[in-house]
Amino acid sequence: MELLTINNVWMMICTALVFFMHLGFGLLEAGLTRQKNTLNILFKNIFIITTGLLLYCLVGFNLMYPGFAEGSLGVFGFAGFGLDAVAAADLAYNEGYTYWTDFLFQGMFAATAATIVSGAVAERVKIVPFMIFVVIYVGLVYPIAGSWKWGGGFLDQLGFYDFAGSTLVHSVGGWAALVAVWLLGARIGKFKDGKPQAIPGHNIPLATAGVLILWLGWFGFNGGSVLSADPALTSLTLVTTCLAAAAGGVAAFLVSTAMYKNLDLTMFLNGILGGLVGITAGADQMGPTDAIIIGAIAGIIIVFAVRFIDKIKLDDPVGAIAVHLFCGIWGTLAVGIFGAMAGWDQFVSQLAGVASYAAICIISTFVILFILKKTVGIRVSETEELEGLDGYEHGMDAYPDFRMNEH
Amino acid sequence: MELLTINNVWMMICTALVFFMHLGFGLLEAGLTRQKNTLNILFKNIFIITTGLLLYCLVGFNLMYPGFAEGSLGVFGFAGFGLDAVAAADLAYNEGYTYWTDFLFQGMFAATAATIVSGAVAERVKIVPFMIFVVIYVGLVYPIAGSWKWGGGFLDQLGFYDFAGSTLVHSVGGWAALVAVWLLGARIGKFKDGKPQAIPGHNIPLATAGVLILWLGWFGFNGGSVLSADPALTSLTLVTTCLAAAAGGVAAFLVSTAMYKNLDLTMFLNGILGGLVGITAGADQMGPTDAIIIGAIAGIIIVFAVRFIDKIKLDDPVGAIAVHLFCGIWGTLAVGIFGAMAGWDQFVSQLAGVASYAAICIISTFVILFILKKTVGIRVSETEELEGLDGYEHGMDAYPDFRMNEH
Amino acid sequence: MELLTINNVWMMICTALVFFMHLGFGLLEAGLTRQKNTLNILFKNIFIITTGLLLYCLVGFNLMYPGFAEGSLGVFGFAGFGLDAVAAADLAYNEGYTYWTDFLFQGMFAATAATIVSGAVAERVKIVPFMIFVVIYVGLVYPIAGSWKWGGGFLDQLGFYDFAGSTLVHSVGGWAALVAVWLLGARIGKFKDGKPQAIPGHNIPLATAGVLILWLGWFGFNGGSVLSADPALTSLTLVTTCLAAAAGGVAAFLVSTAMYKNLDLTMFLNGILGGLVGITAGADQMGPTDAIIIGAIAGIIIVFAVRFIDKIKLDDPVGAIAVHLFCGIWGTLAVGIFGAMAGWDQFVSQLAGVASYAAICIISTFVILFILKKTVGIRVSETEELEGLDGYEHGMDAYPDFRMNEH
Repeated sequence: MELLTINNVWMMICTALVFFMHLGFGLLEAGLTRQKNTLNILFKNIFIITTGLLLYCLVGFNLMYPGFAEGSLGVFGFAGFGLDAVAAADLAYNEGYTYWTDFLFQGMFAATAATIVSGAVAERVKIVPFMIFVVIYVGLVYPIAGSWKWGGGFLDQLGFYDFAGSTLVHSVGGWAALVAVWLLGARIGKFKDGKPQAIPGHNIPLATAGVLILWLGWFGFNGGSVLSADPALTSLTLVTTCLAAAAGGVAAFLVSTAMYKNLDLTMFLNGILGGLVGITAGADQMGPTDAIIIGAIAGIIIVFAVRFIDKIKLDDPVGAIAVHLFCGIWGTLAVGIFGAMAGWDQFVSQLAGVASYAAICIISTFVILFILKKTVGIRVSETEELEGLDGYEHGMDAYPDFRMNEH
Repeated sequence: MELLTINNVWMMICTALVFFMHLGFGLLEAGLTRQKNTLNILFKNIFIITTGLLLYCLVGFNLMYPGFAEGSLGVFGFAGFGLDAVAAADLAYNEGYTYWTDFLFQGMFAATAATIVSGAVAERVKIVPFMIFVVIYVGLVYPIAGSWKWGGGFLDQLGFYDFAGSTLVHSVGGWAALVAVWLLGARIGKFKDGKPQAIPGHNIPLATAGVLILWLGWFGFNGGSVLSADPALTSLTLVTTCLAAAAGGVAAFLVSTAMYKNLDLTMFLNGILGGLVGITAGADQMGPTDAIIIGAIAGIIIVFAVRFIDKIKLDDPVGAIAVHLFCGIWGTLAVGIFGAMAGWDQFVSQLAGVASYAAICIISTFVILFILKKTVGIRVSETEELEGLDGYEHGMDAYPDFRMNEH
Repeated sequence: MELLTINNVWMMICTALVFFMHLGFGLLEAGLTRQKNTLNILFKNIFIITTGLLLYCLVGFNLMYPGFAEGSLGVFGFAGFGLDAVAAADLAYNEGYTYWTDFLFQGMFAATAATIVSGAVAERVKIVPFMIFVVIYVGLVYPIAGSWKWGGGFLDQLGFYDFAGSTLVHSVGGWAALVAVWLLGARIGKFKDGKPQAIPGHNIPLATAGVLILWLGWFGFNGGSVLSADPALTSLTLVTTCLAAAAGGVAAFLVSTAMYKNLDLTMFLNGILGGLVGITAGADQMGPTDAIIIGAIAGIIIVFAVRFIDKIKLDDPVGAIAVHLFCGIWGTLAVGIFGAMAGWDQFVSQLAGVASYAAICIISTFVILFILKKTVGIRVSETEELEGLDGYEHGMDAYPDFRMNEH
């Protein structure tokens, strides 16, 4: 009973920290995009966290943890609508947390995947179709895909390992972002004569605050993924998480400075996020040196991935694909290369996991968005894009009374 | 000893989260008001949290928990000035927390009531009289009123239930806001030819951050009101709290979109707060479905309450009365309608509680502010209001060096 | 095992809160300086937290806790590069925390000292030499100085007491800030005809958020310095911390209002920080009344220290020297005057501690910065200073797409 109480306290705190990541995402995305679309970005983030929780309560939790029967294929299961008052009353449900904590912690994760997409499609996506996409992706795709590993499905049987979601959360968001960005097309003015143009965001202090809030949130994201307060594992996880974040930031800063000769804060910030995403799949399996190497490589990946995405003419205003997809894949594979689980067999399992999630995410995102594109359309009009989404979709400005000083 | 340690850790964390709500309130209120009054709003919030803590140490804690004698009326008691070193040294003080934690957790609550008022009276209240009001309201009215229920006073004897303060905190702030707004009058320009005019705030990203910080703080506000780390109760409470918040936001968004045909972010945000206030009185007594219904109704109340307050020509710049008073009453009554305590007798007890707090809050606020109005005045001059309170009261601007870009 | 788990949970939470202080420092410093240097300030803060953690992993932790042999001088020791997997695997390492938690908690402290300097040298320091300074100061000076007391070195033997770092963290940053500001010289325009000119910052809401985040972080900074979750000590510490913060703010506000006749929010905010720094050395040794007195005196010190620093023609844009050095010294000495350890002998020990840290910090900062000044230079060109560091060092603006409204 005492151990359950301690474990549950830790898990509740981690839940709160993962919840707080939604503010981090909101500020980061708002800061890295233009002022005229700020309200729209924030609206999407608020929609995702609220709707995401309700959907996870309605169907998500029971899709993700359906309790696959022995001998089932482990591909799809559903334990029924709503939460389970009987399981909730059973304090022997799990030694690490109560039923309620389990639901809420996992529910906070669910919304994250969609939030990743919202940054990538910023400044040009039609909000109502985007909300429809979110409902389907958070409500159905994320939990079904999640059941394959965390729900004990077929990838779990195959030995695939993803501690806290480099693949199950970040790549699931990242693949959707990739497909969405491709279907949407680039923002007006992003490519001139085939050359990518920088479209700077409007508020770097907000973006910086967003990244530090996300880092804080990762204490809960990875620390809570231990699923108990086990002192050795939780504290190791926090150390690897923080070292990877630091290494990712420093590596991205050094490489980007060498390449572009200026001290680019947004690259530093995305490097931190890259390091965090990279360590997430194996944060409990690595030592400090592994963590630093994984983080540093993630930071370097960021610099080249941002360049590569520009080169293939995709337009991702906040760098979400570089951070969540590229570093998510890297982190997942790194479990087979570094740390306690390193080995060829494990590497192959990791590859199988990456491929499986690529398949479900690419296909489902494509189908949903393609249908929406052909019916209601997914992109705002040129006028609206040029004048800003805030006025058109929300009838308001994000800084409606902001005045400049005369001096 | 171990159980006390765990419980106390949880309570300290909840204390920190409730403290953090003061940043949430500050950002929300600053964001929803005009730039020229930003410094003034922030000053009030900083004044309230600091002074509130000192007053709660000096008299508040001992007014709120006076230890009513058996057979006393349970209306007023006072256990003496300052904190009690003897009680503090006794680790058997309570199984859920130490004396120090008890004081600090409750002290963080105390300041909240006054903060609610500060948003409603924004942009036109004279700051010195407002500070006098705060000292009396936080120092005396809040703890005396609180003693009626949480101190074991007459409403506790009557069976009135208010888990974490829909009435004791939020309505206590909301009633004061209502009276203050009525005595102060509307801001210049709020009503033209009898019609309410929108006066948009200056920084919606700040307001959004404020709401998400408040939601985070509510993990501590409600979670800590269990007064221990009891795993079943704390985690249930977090689930009902988050579901009500989500449902409140979504309901307010849907209804306001249906009514006004635009996606209004501030309505979404206030809907979330409404859901949070609504669930607070019974967060430990509800199941998930109850929580969603209570939250959704709170969200709908927000939309109509904002309209109603406009209609009766009251001017509440941040929607504090709709959120804290209307949803506070709703949440208090909901304890008699939904969940484990539902029943006619309970509903009547809840009504008695609402009425008692209405009485003490309306009367005391009216007396304090009426005296201040007739003596020093409570409203700034027309010139000051038009030019902004920041320059007049603080000799400074909130963004003194903010420059626009030339492009 | 259960007690270790609880203690470790508390220490991990405190670690997260101390980490979060870096956002507080970043927002405070950015808010109190001009818009044209915002990106630069944020970059420095991000550099410090990432590099600081990596350096603390590489050498800092083993310099700070070298395990001085009996009979050694206790001045310098080094336990080798990197972290110790053997110690990490030993759950009997300490009853209060694991090896990993120990490292991470102390690592978060390490970066703080340098962050203090970054505010003082803002708006004119060359960033590359500053980064070199940070690497040496965080990597070597801070941990060696820290070993004198927290590592069990000679000051610990002498009975010097510094609970959570009024001296070991805040003065260590403050002395460096003092020397740096002196070597750098004042910003252009700070002194006209020998008179100090106010150079207001650009974003007071950010600064306010920064201070409240710092206060929140102090729950971990002081609460975690108990080094376990001991319920009596941790909760007492949070009470003294919060009361000192409140008293510091209110005292600074009252005194500055009496002196300057306007309600100065930045003075209120710095008073809160002064109170926090002041209580830090003895937060576990004081009662509530002591804490209020210590905090109030710290708040008063702030008002006069800011004036004094202006008078001696030093230019500290954010008031870091007043807050961290003056109040750090005050708090350290206060341990000999108030609370459980008060006494002449203790006071002398405290003085010895203050003097020792003054010596190592002044000398090391002077040597490092003097060499940098004579070689690469530590100050940006006049043009760069006038036009802003953001454009020159980072090729970007902090608000690149911020537009004003036409109304």
